[in-house]
Amino acid sequence: MRTIYADNNATTAIAPEVLAVMQPYFTAEYFNPSSMYEAARFPAKAIQQARETVARCLGGVDPEQILFTGSATESNNTALFGTVQANLGRRHIISTAVEHPSVWEVCKELKRRGLEVTFLPVNRRGELELDEFVRALRTDTLLVSIMLANNETGVIFPLERIARIVKETNPEILVHTDATQAIGKIPVDLQGNLKEVDLLSFSGHKIHAPKGVGALFVRRGTRWRPFMIGGHQEKGRRAGTENVPYIVGLAKACELAVATVDDEQTWVRALRDQLQKALEDRIPALEVNGKGAERLPNTLNLAIHGIEGEAMLYELSRAGICASSGSACTSGSLDPSHVLQAMQIPFTAIHGSLRISLSRYSTEEDVQRIIEVLPKIVANLRKISPYWDDVRNCLSIDPPPTNDHPAG
Amino acid sequence: MRTIYADNNATTAIAPEVLAVMQPYFTAEYFNPSSMYEAARFPAKAIQQARETVARCLGGVDPEQILFTGSATESNNTALFGTVQANLGRRHIISTAVEHPSVWEVCKELKRRGLEVTFLPVNRRGELELDEFVRALRTDTLLVSIMLANNETGVIFPLERIARIVKETNPEILVHTDATQAIGKIPVDLQGNLKEVDLLSFSGHKIHAPKGVGALFVRRGTRWRPFMIGGHQEKGRRAGTENVPYIVGLAKACELAVATVDDEQTWVRALRDQLQKALEDRIPALEVNGKGAERLPNTLNLAIHGIEGEAMLYELSRAGICASSGSACTSGSLDPSHVLQAMQIPFTAIHGSLRISLSRYSTEEDVQRIIEVLPKIVANLRKISPYWDDVRNCLSIDPPPTNDHPAG
Repeated sequence: MRTIYADNNATTAIAPEVLAVMQPYFTAEYFNPSSMYEAARFPAKAIQQARETVARCLGGVDPEQILFTGSATESNNTALFGTVQANLGRRHIISTAVEHPSVWEVCKELKRRGLEVTFLPVNRRGELELDEFVRALRTDTLLVSIMLANNETGVIFPLERIARIVKETNPEILVHTDATQAIGKIPVDLQGNLKEVDLLSFSGHKIHAPKGVGALFVRRGTRWRPFMIGGHQEKGRRAGTENVPYIVGLAKACELAVATVDDEQTWVRALRDQLQKALEDRIPALEVNGKGAERLPNTLNLAIHGIEGEAMLYELSRAGICASSGSACTSGSLDPSHVLQAMQIPFTAIHGSLRISLSRYSTEEDVQRIIEVLPKIVANLRKISPYWDDVRNCLSIDPPPTNDHPAG
Repeated sequence: MRTIYADNNATTAIAPEVLAVMQPYFTAEYFNPSSMYEAARFPAKAIQQARETVARCLGGVDPEQILFTGSATESNNTALFGTVQANLGRRHIISTAVEHPSVWEVCKELKRRGLEVTFLPVNRRGELELDEFVRALRTDTLLVSIMLANNETGVIFPLERIARIVKETNPEILVHTDATQAIGKIPVDLQGNLKEVDLLSFSGHKIHAPKGVGALFVRRGTRWRPFMIGGHQEKGRRAGTENVPYIVGLAKACELAVATVDDEQTWVRALRDQLQKALEDRIPALEVNGKGAERLPNTLNLAIHGIEGEAMLYELSRAGICASSGSACTSGSLDPSHVLQAMQIPFTAIHGSLRISLSRYSTEEDVQRIIEVLPKIVANLRKISPYWDDVRNCLSIDPPPTNDHPAG
């Protein structure tokens, strides 16, 4: 059975071009780039070229503002702890109720350590209300950390406007954005739409590079301190021997992401829209979470009333389809998604949430297969659901046709 | 020209067996191990097996006590910051003046944040004086963090005795050791010689796995808090999507390291001793740093009076030989090694330090080539050294024979 991978917001397959550029650094070019001999120059130069490539992909910023890290999680930890450590006089942070755990949990840890954190709510479509944001700004606000696009719903936040409001209010307030889900899917230009953002995080494994590498942009002049402390690597800003193959791979992945962002906006979006329309037509009592909001082109988050998400994922998996109920970073927890809770998705749907996330490697055939399989799975699960009848009555939905499953 | 790699304390070549086991996770098995579908079970199982392998290699400890990280630097940051955050009432740390920067600089950062840190000195051979250690223990001591073997000199510290003294004094004091340079070179048994150690760090890239993966052992019952905060990976103890290929590679490298530790103790040691003897015979005014102390079998650290280490490394590099003047993590800094300074190596030698570090891939031929090349380089550099004559007079050394370089 062919595997249909529709969980690209959890991780992605490594692009063959990325794997190819990594290979020499696993074999002949294994030298420590910090070493002083001739043989180490090649990996050292490769890192510098990777830095220049990433900087170019982010709008042509000065490469010295790019740090390589081990993950977006590390980039986010660095952005938050690093700015807090360097600005001990200002004790207020603004974030949202729908951030990735690597921002959300760090904010909660900072609260535990005595800082004040405002978690902005979102509306039913998953959007921030800018009025609420403006009201949250304080004279002792240190940092605003708001993601560029949500990993579960794909809803895009207006970082350009947010950063402008911040800088007009008080240029000393720092703006950080977790752009992990946005890179390669929407334009990310640190000299253009995001020119007032001070720190920006992302990882490799959401853009077809391996898991275990990330980057952090820190705009020159930003007051922060290193998070990972030790050796002088990354000019003393991030300690640890450089993971040369992954850094080189990340840069290649960024190049490919920038080169294919138009494809995301056109045919990946078309595939997603086709899938969305077909599922809306075929599955009663289905809502598209984030519908009406500006969304990433590849992401479809569904609230399917009256079923258990886990059972649905299991049945999809049996059919060879990989999708998720929320973020992989919180799976394993039995709590419903904090993102969907913040959107006040009703109880009858929040447990039946399904995230389908495509990529440039997704095909028409993949989408057709999901359209064929998912409505049947939903119908079957609803048949055995103890509360589907109540939900159906409540939502005034006709019973499903029975011809698929004639009585004995 | 063949490259002779004699800088294995800086990093190592990836073992072919390690690269082989990593490959599937770069291609077909790219799934996020936290995902719930069938396809993700394979990488998830691979991580669990890797954990079991590493636990077995460390003396058969419970695998749930092993966390995978991005580097030894991260493991050390986690051990130190993690125990400090969990034990805010106790504010004293004991470490040494010769730790790796990822412990040393973290200790300095903790001092900056108000903790008290005792940096134990070492003697002229690079050894700790246990009397001084005992005197440093206080009622408010939280943590003792002492490396198992020094990365520059190879000097081995008596962690078994240190841990026993700590636990006899106060079982609540935690013992951490950075075992990065020791794994694979000397026995590391967390149920045996290190059974009273609470936390132990190491990385992959010193044992022929790639750069960008490490591990931290945290003994059950140890009070600590996570350092890298976010998703629920590693049972909520280390956030960030798992770097599956590197974790699998690290486990394989541990297996190989344990299987070859006897080779290190026999023929790698014999190669090193042969090299040491030959260089002592051929180079006047040469000291072996750490001589007389218990040392790692692969490491040879030389103090060569009257020359500049950088010029020596450059000439070695021209001859295809990779060696270092200190740790790669501090190269780029013009300061002499903090380790050799702590050992009070005299000024006339500290700038001429050279670390040669072998591995199981080193050969008799490599060593012969170093024996052939290095004495000539030293002689030539001393000829042009502005202060060699003074050093020679001071140390009462005869002038070198001139027949190698007849006049005009």
